[in-house]
Amino acid sequence: MTTSANPGSPDWASRMQELRDAVPSPRRAELHRLADGARGVLHRLVQTSAPIELISEAADELEALAARFAEHPSSSIYEGFAEAANAGEPFAFFDHSPMLGKANPLAPPIELRLEGAQMVGIATFGAAYEGPPGCVHGGYVAAAFDEVLGSAQSLSGSPGMTAQLVVNYRSPTPLHTELRFVGTLDSVDGRKIRTSGQVWAGNVLCAEAEGLFISIDFLRFADLKARRAERQTRRAGGAAEG
Amino acid sequence: MTTSANPGSPDWASRMQELRDAVPSPRRAELHRLADGARGVLHRLVQTSAPIELISEAADELEALAARFAEHPSSSIYEGFAEAANAGEPFAFFDHSPMLGKANPLAPPIELRLEGAQMVGIATFGAAYEGPPGCVHGGYVAAAFDEVLGSAQSLSGSPGMTAQLVVNYRSPTPLHTELRFVGTLDSVDGRKIRTSGQVWAGNVLCAEAEGLFISIDFLRFADLKARRAERQTRRAGGAAEG
Repeated sequence: MTTSANPGSPDWASRMQELRDAVPSPRRAELHRLADGARGVLHRLVQTSAPIELISEAADELEALAARFAEHPSSSIYEGFAEAANAGEPFAFFDHSPMLGKANPLAPPIELRLEGAQMVGIATFGAAYEGPPGCVHGGYVAAAFDEVLGSAQSLSGSPGMTAQLVVNYRSPTPLHTELRFVGTLDSVDGRKIRTSGQVWAGNVLCAEAEGLFISIDFLRFADLKARRAERQTRRAGGAAEG
Repeated sequence: MTTSANPGSPDWASRMQELRDAVPSPRRAELHRLADGARGVLHRLVQTSAPIELISEAADELEALAARFAEHPSSSIYEGFAEAANAGEPFAFFDHSPMLGKANPLAPPIELRLEGAQMVGIATFGAAYEGPPGCVHGGYVAAAFDEVLGSAQSLSGSPGMTAQLVVNYRSPTPLHTELRFVGTLDSVDGRKIRTSGQVWAGNVLCAEAEGLFISIDFLRFADLKARRAERQTRRAGGAAEG
């Protein structure tokens, strides 16, 4: 947590804009294309009518691919942060977040940008996120709010972790539709940072949310990192989990 | 929504146990293996140290695979439901949900089971779900609660959709650790169904949640399905989104 690219650091919002507009290195660009390829597969396979032969061949291919990646150790995105200050690669958070990450197939991804004093997240959720018919699973709507409000609270200049998230669902959130999440920093009271937000599909308000964050200090993050390192040591070999 | 396998239908809880214990058909088993293969790739790629050559080759392979799946139309999981009553394949929801789905790489997946009057969800979150160092992204904790409480409310016998979800984060939720989500049906007051839950990592309480659901009738779901069909017609060709 030594680089100004960290969410929550005082200049994060402006730094984020700068990072977002940066031309990716060839390796980052290929990681984004890899994640897009994975998205292309996963959004098609969840409801596929493909014959079992294709499904089996695809499973074989993915198992082989996973084995090839297993030969290369995975670093931590937080090691990425630590290195970033020196190496000039402070993109880890934005690439790897399970909500924002262009290089993480779990992420739609949400594209964050600052509009005036508001944090805006633009996202389109594909087929695999389906909850009610044709609609985004409500849990993923909540997950997106956590990310957008978590970014809005960083405008306070104090790093914080989510203490409470409240989501009120107003109308079903459509799949395959550009959604606009808006997050606002409402107040800072000691360590308590309050935020609120909405998600819109065009002019339709789909859900509203409130997020309470408690600012933390670097020692707290250092402690989490130390415990993470301990666990990684215990899981010797470092195989990825599914 | 014509089969008793639907979440929210009166006999869903017991039916779910029965479905969970059923031996999967060969096609379902291969879809599960395919999703596991995709999980193996995605949890390794988000933090990979692999050289750009492997990343590029993998991206090519996934793009080719996506193109092969694109030749086969995707059905809706809800069409799956409608067919289920006749075809005896009422597994769509449990296979395809973005939280429970064994055949959906977005899902950890959570394994649901009924223990007495409580709905219990067991899940281990892999590398790609990382938020704080070594911990599950808080948004995905919320998403998991939405699913588990959504299942707990189905014990009321009334189908319902999430109206409000409140998550209170108590301590960081570890990655790579078996988590136990517990959901309880607290009360039914007219159409309002109240639930609450906790998530534990061993003896550590990581978060608590409350979920308010409003029971809906079949017309509401039919309306969503009709609007979904309209949108699908508009997106002629049916290409999957990323």
